[in-house]
Amino acid sequence: MKLKIALLAGDGIGPEVIDQAVKVSNAIAKKYNHEINWTPALTGAAAIDAVGEPYPDETHAVCEAADAVLFGAIGHPRFDNDPSAKVRPEQGLLKMRQKLGLFANVRPTFTFPSLIDKSPLKRERIEGTDLIILRELTGGVYFGERGRKDNGNTAFDTMTYTRAEIQRLAKKGFEMAMTRSKRLCCVDKANVLESSRLWRETVQAMEKDYPEVTVSYEFVDAVAMRLVQWPKGYDVIITENLFGDILTDEASVISGSMGLMPSASVGSKVRLYEPIHGSYPQAAGKDIANPLATVLSAAMMFEDFDLKEEAQAIRDVVNKSLAEGYVTEDLSEGGKSYKTSEVGDWLAKNI
Amino acid sequence: MKLKIALLAGDGIGPEVIDQAVKVSNAIAKKYNHEINWTPALTGAAAIDAVGEPYPDETHAVCEAADAVLFGAIGHPRFDNDPSAKVRPEQGLLKMRQKLGLFANVRPTFTFPSLIDKSPLKRERIEGTDLIILRELTGGVYFGERGRKDNGNTAFDTMTYTRAEIQRLAKKGFEMAMTRSKRLCCVDKANVLESSRLWRETVQAMEKDYPEVTVSYEFVDAVAMRLVQWPKGYDVIITENLFGDILTDEASVISGSMGLMPSASVGSKVRLYEPIHGSYPQAAGKDIANPLATVLSAAMMFEDFDLKEEAQAIRDVVNKSLAEGYVTEDLSEGGKSYKTSEVGDWLAKNI
Ligand SMILES: CC(C)[C@H](C(=O)O)[C@@H](O)C(=O)O
Ligand SMILES: CC(C)[C@H](C(=O)O)[C@@H](O)C(=O)O
Repeated sequence: MKLKIALLAGDGIGPEVIDQAVKVSNAIAKKYNHEINWTPALTGAAAIDAVGEPYPDETHAVCEAADAVLFGAIGHPRFDNDPSAKVRPEQGLLKMRQKLGLFANVRPTFTFPSLIDKSPLKRERIEGTDLIILRELTGGVYFGERGRKDNGNTAFDTMTYTRAEIQRLAKKGFEMAMTRSKRLCCVDKANVLESSRLWRETVQAMEKDYPEVTVSYEFVDAVAMRLVQWPKGYDVIITENLFGDILTDEASVISGSMGLMPSASVGSKVRLYEPIHGSYPQAAGKDIANPLATVLSAAMMFEDFDLKEEAQAIRDVVNKSLAEGYVTEDLSEGGKSYKTSEVGDWLAKNI
Repeated sequence: MKLKIALLAGDGIGPEVIDQAVKVSNAIAKKYNHEINWTPALTGAAAIDAVGEPYPDETHAVCEAADAVLFGAIGHPRFDNDPSAKVRPEQGLLKMRQKLGLFANVRPTFTFPSLIDKSPLKRERIEGTDLIILRELTGGVYFGERGRKDNGNTAFDTMTYTRAEIQRLAKKGFEMAMTRSKRLCCVDKANVLESSRLWRETVQAMEKDYPEVTVSYEFVDAVAMRLVQWPKGYDVIITENLFGDILTDEASVISGSMGLMPSASVGSKVRLYEPIHGSYPQAAGKDIANPLATVLSAAMMFEDFDLKEEAQAIRDVVNKSLAEGYVTEDLSEGGKSYKTSEVGDWLAKNI
């Protein structure tokens, strides 16, 4: 297969982890006789510094022309602590999601046999967890009108959803549940929010089209609790943008490390693959960041191109590195650890 | 001391758990020579059924005339799954918070020595946890404008904050941090939300008035992860209404059971004490609900009346019941368990 992949490394540890995913993907291409054409493009703080814009038009053009996008991370503390900054790296991420039509973020949560005891949660609570959070990604309070009033003394953000936005996300959720254990949980705050009531009413109306799927409706506060208490209680979770942001980060503790969790953003022609962790600026440039989440995001990419063996080969080599302790310091528990680049080399060599 | 307490039992298990808190408080009054005058009043679904309104004016008058309010729970599934319901029990809760000026909800999170192994989290992660989440309670998306457009096909909610609302909540946070280990964490989503940027800018400007307090700013998604990973990393957390709702429920897993976590809502003359759990309708009327969170909420009430010995006596008897296994079925782990009312009787007798 010939693949054209846009490579958006972004900020912080982004470039370092992306490098390893490229190494591993190239090893796969070599072994399975594919051709991957990588086109790097600027995004995030790196793009602001270079061209004053976190998601420049040229970058969008590169993404649109690609078969898929592999993305690192975005964000820089220089902007976080300056509430008055006019341009922010995160705007690039939001613009990218919107312009590429990536309305659903698929975040699987699972455990790794060799890491299960690293989780802050007890083994019996998490062993066998296999859930997917489907987060709406181009609506809600991320994209509603926001601003200031009263000379800057009042600030507002608008959380807004249309029935159509909810339907297309929920449809993916129902379809995904059908291929799995047929349980769908819609997470909202319908006891307070009007947008949540629209979610609930829309999903309720769709139930009849999927009679085999058992649907439950739970409040986001309760789910924030149950997700760590008994993650095996969930199969497919659908939820709006902000709730999904919070719950997916929370769910990463189940696997023992955020440094391991991949994601795919889907919705239109071009799909985007990215680790769920952020730009982790404290580690940038130190060659210590864990590249596995990005490598596993590349595996999701191969899977979506229907290259299942290739995807499995990546997951296998990741499991091997975990089992043999060929890992970065975040996973080494005081034992021997390896540099980001060393882990990437090792993975590529062992493909 | 003479105390006039408004008693708002509310819905579901509310009346049952409130009964036990009353028994225990009366035992305290007897032992320490206080006089408690309880005035029951309607709220929630119970009030809707009786007078068509979840927080009737008469109830408000009872609260205003009291020295404090002891509150059970609000909410009924009959309304949850009817997105078109016009009046909802929760509106009563929100109205009560707003009309009583309860702008801050204080939710301590701690562990119980005898329960530590019941938590889904590992002992070494949670032992010694002692954090307080200070949740803003009368602003944000709970109180902003909401509604429908486009023939009901678009729904919106508005998250809005004024500088003054943030200041008064943050002031409490700084003051609380000063009496503790002087660490304050402001939780927001300032990389996306304008209201969060106002939070951050307001709290930043207040730092100079509390030079001894170390302030950190963290994003809500990251905190949802870190809170279960390493709760001992936090001392006082301040946050807006919705984030506080989610994070406090999540934090309850640290203690091993939501059935144990008390809270106080403060802000003006009359304070309100309530368990953080909800109305748990599945258990209503079965005499099986855990009354300890409500009993510990009563302890917070005595503490705030500066009756420290009394508050400690309640906490001691709760610890005793946990240590001796005189508990409801949610805590008995298949061993012998007791009814809600039996636990209340036992606690009162052992005061
Ligand atoms: C960086 C930030 C804007 C982003 C989000 O909130 O969507 C991140 O947390 C994520 O989850 O991808
Ligand atoms: C019942 C509901 C409206 C309420 C809230 O969200 O504030 C509850 O979850 C709470 O935390 O007290």
